[in-house]
Amino acid sequence: MLSIIRLGHRIGRDARLSTHCGLAARALGADEIIYSGEYEKKMINNIKDVTNRWGGPFKASYQKNWRKIIKQYREKRFIIIHMSMYGLPIKKQISKIRKNKNILVIVGSEKVPAEVYHLADYNIAVTNQPHSEVAALSIFLHEYFKSKELDKKFKKAKIRIVPQPCGKKVIENR
Amino acid sequence: MLSIIRLGHRIGRDARLSTHCGLAARALGADEIIYSGEYEKKMINNIKDVTNRWGGPFKASYQKNWRKIIKQYREKRFIIIHMSMYGLPIKKQISKIRKNKNILVIVGSEKVPAEVYHLADYNIAVTNQPHSEVAALSIFLHEYFKSKELDKKFKKAKIRIVPQPCGKKVIENR
Repeated sequence: MLSIIRLGHRIGRDARLSTHCGLAARALGADEIIYSGEYEKKMINNIKDVTNRWGGPFKASYQKNWRKIIKQYREKRFIIIHMSMYGLPIKKQISKIRKNKNILVIVGSEKVPAEVYHLADYNIAVTNQPHSEVAALSIFLHEYFKSKELDKKFKKAKIRIVPQPCGKKVIENR
Repeated sequence: MLSIIRLGHRIGRDARLSTHCGLAARALGADEIIYSGEYEKKMINNIKDVTNRWGGPFKASYQKNWRKIIKQYREKRFIIIHMSMYGLPIKKQISKIRKNKNILVIVGSEKVPAEVYHLADYNIAVTNQPHSEVAALSIFLHEYFKSKELDKKFKKAKIRIVPQPCGKKVIENR
């Protein structure tokens, strides 16, 4: 199982970036995203709506107490990964990480408490440059799943795309 | 040369996502980003500031007329790639695309004019699921550069990170 926890969500300000984290997590093979920080029902419902229409399984939920989540997942023997530009290069760490089937990936927003670095088993950098948590998470998932996530089939989809060289082809099951 | 054009930027509303596109483009090996849509000086200056502090070369600019840019780059024999969830799977197309050294990648925002599909040489999907232009662009760059972009060295950096298993180590050249 691959779970994501997104820390420090702020209503409105982070809505689109947090949505992109959730949608990228779902599309790129993760099983769930847990949002922490401020509770924004509409944003979480957006993710649920996409899963309902485009298929799953994928779970989106909110938990105020992120420390509790990390503790719980550690007790369930999940490996805790923190995505950070200060961490070790993903290319050198991913084969070790891949040996674990149960993973919790922590994705921060602008400021992450120092404590998080210590709670993680691995602090992992996708380049040591400032860029984007959406980009870092996506490349982590792509590396972890060795690009097989791109072929993932979603269950109970009401809508799906038939790839086209030009234009749009969508099939809806009503 | 690998250039990105971000279409349909809207002031304020898209500022953070467009910034993430620019920063991810820079960090993951692109040479420039051109913003179209509404002109937001502060957002473009953010990208320039990052390049100034963290190194380059990387160019961020604005052009109102995106059709002109696509036409100009085509005349300079760039291959035009449009990232789209309706397009063909990246894994099957990337080796053909990789044969070209000069590439313009079009990254849309929520609505992209139908015309763009026809202007592109390739409409490329990173999964046919709804997710994030930042995620799609990042995985495109990661596939195009075969993950070598993660080792890119930036020139004239005033600040750089020394990767750490835990915590932060930053070196500043003043």
